[in-house]
Amino acid sequence: MSPAIATNDLPVTQYEESLIPILLPSDIYGEFQSNRLNHTPPLPSILKNPFRVVDGPATTAAGNPNEIAKLFPNLYGQPSVSLVPGHSEVKGQSLKVGVVFSGGQAPGGHNVITGIFDYLQERARGSTLYGFKGGPAGIMSCKYVKLTAELIYPYRNQGGFHMICSSRDKIETPEQLKQAEETVKKLDLDGLVIIGGDDSNTNACVLAENFRSKNMKTQVIGCPKTIDGDLKCKEVPISFGFDTACKIYSEMIGNAMIDARSTGKYYHFIRLMGRAASHITLECALQTHPNIAIIGEEVAAKNRTMKNITIYIADIICKRMELGFNYGVIILSEGLIDFIPEVKQLIAELNEILAHDVVDEAGMWKGKLRGQSRELFEFLPRPIQEQLLLERDPHGNVQVAKIETEKMLIQMVETELDQRKQRGAYKGQFQGKPHFFGYEGRCGFPTNFDANYCYALGYVTGILLHSGKTGLISSVSNLTAPVDEWTVGGTPLTSLMDVERRHGKFKPVIKKAMVDLEGAPMKKFASLRDDWALKNRYISPGPIQFVGPFANDINHTVMLELGAQFLF
Amino acid sequence: MSPAIATNDLPVTQYEESLIPILLPSDIYGEFQSNRLNHTPPLPSILKNPFRVVDGPATTAAGNPNEIAKLFPNLYGQPSVSLVPGHSEVKGQSLKVGVVFSGGQAPGGHNVITGIFDYLQERARGSTLYGFKGGPAGIMSCKYVKLTAELIYPYRNQGGFHMICSSRDKIETPEQLKQAEETVKKLDLDGLVIIGGDDSNTNACVLAENFRSKNMKTQVIGCPKTIDGDLKCKEVPISFGFDTACKIYSEMIGNAMIDARSTGKYYHFIRLMGRAASHITLECALQTHPNIAIIGEEVAAKNRTMKNITIYIADIICKRMELGFNYGVIILSEGLIDFIPEVKQLIAELNEILAHDVVDEAGMWKGKLRGQSRELFEFLPRPIQEQLLLERDPHGNVQVAKIETEKMLIQMVETELDQRKQRGAYKGQFQGKPHFFGYEGRCGFPTNFDANYCYALGYVTGILLHSGKTGLISSVSNLTAPVDEWTVGGTPLTSLMDVERRHGKFKPVIKKAMVDLEGAPMKKFASLRDDWALKNRYISPGPIQFVGPFANDINHTVMLELGAQFLF
Repeated sequence: MSPAIATNDLPVTQYEESLIPILLPSDIYGEFQSNRLNHTPPLPSILKNPFRVVDGPATTAAGNPNEIAKLFPNLYGQPSVSLVPGHSEVKGQSLKVGVVFSGGQAPGGHNVITGIFDYLQERARGSTLYGFKGGPAGIMSCKYVKLTAELIYPYRNQGGFHMICSSRDKIETPEQLKQAEETVKKLDLDGLVIIGGDDSNTNACVLAENFRSKNMKTQVIGCPKTIDGDLKCKEVPISFGFDTACKIYSEMIGNAMIDARSTGKYYHFIRLMGRAASHITLECALQTHPNIAIIGEEVAAKNRTMKNITIYIADIICKRMELGFNYGVIILSEGLIDFIPEVKQLIAELNEILAHDVVDEAGMWKGKLRGQSRELFEFLPRPIQEQLLLERDPHGNVQVAKIETEKMLIQMVETELDQRKQRGAYKGQFQGKPHFFGYEGRCGFPTNFDANYCYALGYVTGILLHSGKTGLISSVSNLTAPVDEWTVGGTPLTSLMDVERRHGKFKPVIKKAMVDLEGAPMKKFASLRDDWALKNRYISPGPIQFVGPFANDINHTVMLELGAQFLF
Repeated sequence: MSPAIATNDLPVTQYEESLIPILLPSDIYGEFQSNRLNHTPPLPSILKNPFRVVDGPATTAAGNPNEIAKLFPNLYGQPSVSLVPGHSEVKGQSLKVGVVFSGGQAPGGHNVITGIFDYLQERARGSTLYGFKGGPAGIMSCKYVKLTAELIYPYRNQGGFHMICSSRDKIETPEQLKQAEETVKKLDLDGLVIIGGDDSNTNACVLAENFRSKNMKTQVIGCPKTIDGDLKCKEVPISFGFDTACKIYSEMIGNAMIDARSTGKYYHFIRLMGRAASHITLECALQTHPNIAIIGEEVAAKNRTMKNITIYIADIICKRMELGFNYGVIILSEGLIDFIPEVKQLIAELNEILAHDVVDEAGMWKGKLRGQSRELFEFLPRPIQEQLLLERDPHGNVQVAKIETEKMLIQMVETELDQRKQRGAYKGQFQGKPHFFGYEGRCGFPTNFDANYCYALGYVTGILLHSGKTGLISSVSNLTAPVDEWTVGGTPLTSLMDVERRHGKFKPVIKKAMVDLEGAPMKKFASLRDDWALKNRYISPGPIQFVGPFANDINHTVMLELGAQFLF
């Protein structure tokens, strides 16, 4: 072990001051962090040779094209673009570009910025890249930093978003849009890059339309970010960060499997981050082969109840006991509870009751619950009942997000197994161990896949801006091939959009890509899960490797969705 | 990604049947698991050339030598042994050896067995190795499996103990000792190897003394296992598994640090496995530089109270707020609560009261608590109070182990900060996020260090048995040098022992090696922690690597304790 490097040669930072970066002079880097700086993401060959940007046919929308056309009159129908070999008409003029992180962290974000920067350095000399600090709020308040090679260097291939940080603000109201206009005018921006999830990319499209409607020169390009993997379409096979997060969680799940098997007496109930979609749970299941993985989308589609889920788990535990296995691993997604129709109903009724009635000790208030909701409430373990009644948000609403679903399921399965025991139908000793894997996966070092994918996304973002495009999301495809063969381009954000009716108005939304129950990953899982349930088909994938034979593995979801055939 | 290998060519397994291994024909291996099978742990050069076993001077005991001498009349005073180059007097006769895992899992255990097996194959041809199944209970009930090359192969360099599993039983009563005697006689064992922690190695010594006192030929050798790192002495620099577990936890802590910094609004409170000693917490602190790490041994030595700890944390949070940092990472050990003298006192009083009195709603029962205990009880957050009163073990005792210390601390710090806020002394928004990192670290793939260390431990265990030694613990030293230069030998278990008085009798114990407040790791930490508290010196060490420049890194604790000088 040699000394860690100190980054004392980097400029001083204060959040409060514009034009000063966020890395502190006190920062020190571990050897591994320093070493990752040396990874040079390879570029797809299309980007290493002369290329030109070609337009495809006109596009429509994911739903309600007429409404989308009305909402985005200046953007609707734009063609997708792709890069092909040839000589560019793009002039080498310099650009002024601003970039922002929006929403939760995802591994690889820093490489998107690095890719944009390197493109500008190499192909648009004299360009300036600004980073807005602290998320979209930084655009509105014009807090930014000029990103230089020295500033960007320490973030190459590192996890997190701390180069410029992030937040969950939106730029929506006329006043907020005005503030954004003022900022891009003040900085004379040719381009604005929004690195974010579905909401943030919707916001990017709104900004693009707004700027164009006012004949402003600022173009807006989005980049697909979210560990949840629920921002994707034909041209955007996956959002960045999903690969790394799933591999980190799978490492831990694999370890818990070996532990379960060695100890022979625990059922590990593992809740995984991701509220809206269950892609992470499905991917981790494909990587590790747990005894049970509960996919929220399927629970919703089949109108499953808490009782159904409890019995499903208890049945498998009983069958495993007969085979001599008093242990197992069960994975579920953070958002599972939001998928259960009866739970949604109960919570709506509780919110109503708690807002108007007194919750009496004797439980008379329960008479106000409808039949099914009352039955469910009585079925829930006591601590969960209390949590539902006591912990409410500032608006008085029940805090669903705070419910530790894995603990709730353990308690419910325990109760069910106790009942079976009393009637002689179960003889084992059930011991559930709850886990939540979340924050530790959002900020890991990006896998080589995410590092390379993000760098390419950033690089193509530079090209799209340089070609005068706006309202597109950067796309990099053909991801199962070697990086050299990846294809790149841009897809109109309007083509991903549908509308939702909120407060009597149509609101544009990029629909979250939920787990497709007919998709290849789900089908693969469904065809194997009964086998995994009873037998021990555990796979322990081990920690992410950056060199050696596993350094460039790609997650199963992308492989299967892109049609790769491979055995597990 | 190519197909995972199926181990269908391996024999069928049932736990119930002796002589049949535990790996199931249904087991499939992931590619990474298969790849790790190829790692060939290098042997120290002393083991690759002709060597002989030499005795050192006579030994005494860690404490109360007279009592230890009385308890172990046949073993007390044995010399330590070491290997030196030369020609062995050991004959090449074959041996019958049994091996058992005792206690919780630690990465590398399978390699100890592999090392024993390979030694016997190479240097004592015709030997037989039996694995006792399900821990020491397998010795008593004579449940075993004959370990062959085919059976052992799939476990090389893999985590977990599932080759033969483990348990926490002890062989103590005259009847249990009798059962053990019958088993070793039945199998005609020359040697018995106990792979375990402090308690299990004490048990190994008791067995060795028992067998020798009865002129039985069976020798007993112990191996130092525990992720907690609290079984060590001069000749045994570290127990195996500590290196891997700390690196897994440090990876996650490092990720949480990047997350804290990127988000800018969370304090992550991370509880780490390890009840008795705080070595894991200290090592992870040295690897990652958290803002606060609470070392139980220091809390006990300085007679700290819950209130002291709360104020210490709150003070740092306030100071960080003034520097603009409303986030941070705090690590603590699972056993922290056991180190706080006032908590021990409160729990003793609660156990007494709960056994004899009714806990009345009005709280009259609290009058029975002594002044300081009552004050502490009132200071504890409500949910913790309830947990103390409601959740009790089958003997009616308060279940300290079930208390989620990280959540308790969050609640206490929150209350303290709320009070400061009211008097204008704190203006931030405190949000604590609780984590427990435990099971996911006990069964990871052993680092190259643990894989190699364990293999050498196993190999030298074979030598010690072959040389007729008993009552020793295998030792491998000079660990900061390349493997080639490691030194090997054996240390008398009696030399690690002291006595404790229990139920009016002296009981031999290997004293747990607690964190030495004057030791090099603690001094290093103590000299740096004030700097880490306020500034961001976070290090993200990344996932364990098996190839490349970081593949052979050794943990800081071993490096510092063995006198290595290096910068952080």
